[in-house]
Amino acid sequence: MSETLYDHLTAVFFPNRIAVVGASANPAKLGHQALLALTRGGFKGDIYAVNPSAAGREILGVRCFGAIDQLPGGIQLFVFALPHPLIEPSLKMAAAKGARGAVVFAGGFRETGPDGAALQQRIRLTADACGIKIIGPNCVGMINLHHGLNATFAYPDLDMPAGRVAVVSQSGGTGLAILNLMLDNCVGLSKFVSVGNRVNLDFADLLVYLADDPETDVICLFIEGIDEGRRFFEAACRAARKKAIIACQAGASGKSRELAGSHTGSMTESRAVIRAALWQAGVLPVDHLEEMIDTAKALCLVPSPRGNGIAVFTHTAGPAIIVTEIIEAGGAVVPDFSPAHKKELLPLLPEFARPTLPLDMFAHGWLDPSLYLKSLKMAFSQPDVHMACACFIPDLENRWRFPAREYAEIARTYGKPAILALMTPQSHIRFIAEADAAGVPSYISPEKAARTLVNLIRCGRLKRRPPVAASTALE
Amino acid sequence: MSETLYDHLTAVFFPNRIAVVGASANPAKLGHQALLALTRGGFKGDIYAVNPSAAGREILGVRCFGAIDQLPGGIQLFVFALPHPLIEPSLKMAAAKGARGAVVFAGGFRETGPDGAALQQRIRLTADACGIKIIGPNCVGMINLHHGLNATFAYPDLDMPAGRVAVVSQSGGTGLAILNLMLDNCVGLSKFVSVGNRVNLDFADLLVYLADDPETDVICLFIEGIDEGRRFFEAACRAARKKAIIACQAGASGKSRELAGSHTGSMTESRAVIRAALWQAGVLPVDHLEEMIDTAKALCLVPSPRGNGIAVFTHTAGPAIIVTEIIEAGGAVVPDFSPAHKKELLPLLPEFARPTLPLDMFAHGWLDPSLYLKSLKMAFSQPDVHMACACFIPDLENRWRFPAREYAEIARTYGKPAILALMTPQSHIRFIAEADAAGVPSYISPEKAARTLVNLIRCGRLKRRPPVAASTALE
Repeated sequence: MSETLYDHLTAVFFPNRIAVVGASANPAKLGHQALLALTRGGFKGDIYAVNPSAAGREILGVRCFGAIDQLPGGIQLFVFALPHPLIEPSLKMAAAKGARGAVVFAGGFRETGPDGAALQQRIRLTADACGIKIIGPNCVGMINLHHGLNATFAYPDLDMPAGRVAVVSQSGGTGLAILNLMLDNCVGLSKFVSVGNRVNLDFADLLVYLADDPETDVICLFIEGIDEGRRFFEAACRAARKKAIIACQAGASGKSRELAGSHTGSMTESRAVIRAALWQAGVLPVDHLEEMIDTAKALCLVPSPRGNGIAVFTHTAGPAIIVTEIIEAGGAVVPDFSPAHKKELLPLLPEFARPTLPLDMFAHGWLDPSLYLKSLKMAFSQPDVHMACACFIPDLENRWRFPAREYAEIARTYGKPAILALMTPQSHIRFIAEADAAGVPSYISPEKAARTLVNLIRCGRLKRRPPVAASTALE
Repeated sequence: MSETLYDHLTAVFFPNRIAVVGASANPAKLGHQALLALTRGGFKGDIYAVNPSAAGREILGVRCFGAIDQLPGGIQLFVFALPHPLIEPSLKMAAAKGARGAVVFAGGFRETGPDGAALQQRIRLTADACGIKIIGPNCVGMINLHHGLNATFAYPDLDMPAGRVAVVSQSGGTGLAILNLMLDNCVGLSKFVSVGNRVNLDFADLLVYLADDPETDVICLFIEGIDEGRRFFEAACRAARKKAIIACQAGASGKSRELAGSHTGSMTESRAVIRAALWQAGVLPVDHLEEMIDTAKALCLVPSPRGNGIAVFTHTAGPAIIVTEIIEAGGAVVPDFSPAHKKELLPLLPEFARPTLPLDMFAHGWLDPSLYLKSLKMAFSQPDVHMACACFIPDLENRWRFPAREYAEIARTYGKPAILALMTPQSHIRFIAEADAAGVPSYISPEKAARTLVNLIRCGRLKRRPPVAASTALE
């Protein structure tokens, strides 16, 4: 029985042995940064370095070999910090040492014109013949955080929480920007792949793998252009039945399209065509990277809403006004409390507060946050309320805290998603991390929370839709 | 000669003596938090506390008086941490002690219905008769950071840089969210006013003051609704000739409109009407708080562009693709290098890089950032390039740095605005602060940089427009 794509990529994501070819003692070289990232990432397997001019010595504590053919066998992953003309011969030697995957940082391929495209095609044939999947070329590499594997030339000291969001980015730089956003927003990473020019490992292949990856719940894609539209579409359709997929696309118009062409060599369809195809495939298209990561966090933590009724709670009206305006514009409905609940709620509220939704509890909600819990219970017991958003400004000395654990418990009891706009400066981002950890997806601004609510509704609709046959494609 | 509004508000913003009435030793009381914020803010004048039950003792090291009439004279600013029924009599006593301004935190006025509206009207008459401007009621207070004055009940440990951006927010909570954003984005504050229900101190009054405030270059407004449309419009028209004004508006539709009504008691016009009036007055309307603060930072640091041609530079294409797509959609043009510049640039670039705009210098631009400077000079010497945006990912160990100082110098030489998308996690936000300090407005994401560029073009157009007669109003 031939090996499945899933098994092949498992070997690539979970190597026991890795070699960095072109390893360097000079910190200004990618071959140094790559070795640094690998050695500091917590990888438990064996790491080897290759550099003819440093044979027999150590670089960053790693023994250096003079050539690939001097390496021991069983090295599943090779990281090539080499110029583009050396890639093809190196692939063949790596195959003899057991390579299943190769990270290729170098540019100089399809993005440069016809000669580069021909070279890329030759590398594709060689890699396919050798049974090697290439990450790149023209990329920053890959990460399997649960495995302590940082095979990039960036972020040697990546102090990122392992989590359940996978990232596949066509652009390495944008990929790093996405990792920054995940760090800043307390979103944990499972796997990261900078696919670059996509020689023989494209979005479609990674969707096949990540659909069944037990460490991934949400897949985030940054797409500039798609080469094999039908293949992508079919893989996305299948993956979307198992995992939530969010896609951000750029480079569809004017000069940005030209730049995308000279970047990873793909020409983009119009934005509208790509968005329509993504929807059709069950993928959520988003406008911005921030929106992608904010939504990914919520999808990891809360169930899918079964409708578009949202209850909003606050101790300070302004942020709730912002949330309400955005969710209404995004197609949500803000139901009111039932007459019975109004009657029950009124004596609990301070003078002048009205028992209506959106509910403003004034400063009393801040000083006695149990009001949030009582009103959430009432709202969630109504069939017209499918989701909730609380707005809260923590005092920076953390005496008045939002009761995130109890809020999450109520949400779990009702099986309805509840999120939090917790307006804190980044210096107190741990408040956000704590609320996330308690099970409440939390956001530092009302806009972020509101856009996330709208996207949860959209994802819920995608999920409840009958499976789409892969009859419409991008091609 | 009667006192001008400007002189009156100068007395309010620069008091020598302040009293907190309702000061409390209980940290759960606003009267405690307010005294804490004042005593920790670095205020150089005298602070007094008033609380009948603590007369003769000290609260937070401040001597406590039993009643307002026991205070010494010459107290220009009173902070009332009192329930709403006590405000009116207190105002009269404060006037006898020299009060020119009063911060009123309490709710219970117009936002609660006809009785509250009547009470608010009585307070207005009293305050006007006594010559007192009221900040609020139903607000979090005011800050004059250059004067060490934090007369809010929030953020006693506000560690904010003093700067040239003033904030006037109808909502206290949103006002605090704006301060968070300023902190997170290294934007310095001059003055902050939470205007709440706006008894006799409204947006229009503060626009009159801030237009001539030597410590303020940019005025940010968060508006829920406007009461006296014509007055606001005329004040905005006049202030916009002297200062840049940015406004974010919420609460114009559906349930958000209802909530705004029960918040500070104002009913909003439709979003479209307000936006049109703001444009007409020379005010830049923005969609989000983040966009407001990002734009404010740039307006403080760079001159107004004289056209819409933008040069984009990068060492990693993805972020530049995002920037280019957003600015093109926002009405900017991305010109190319002249043939002469192409010829001059080509030998400086690495193999395969194209001497076109947007310019992708690949990793060479990262390892040798002087490429950014050379290409910026060429671009800025072209008459069709009016602005520039560089994209850069710093390594977190800060060995390859963007040459912000030299970049800013070139920009100053040509008198053209140049900004930076410096994609760093918040943990390394000091990189942003350093680039800002060097004179380059810097942003942690390509989207933020791109939206800012679009807003600089819009502000430039507002600035070059002939003054608008205040003939069209909101009323």
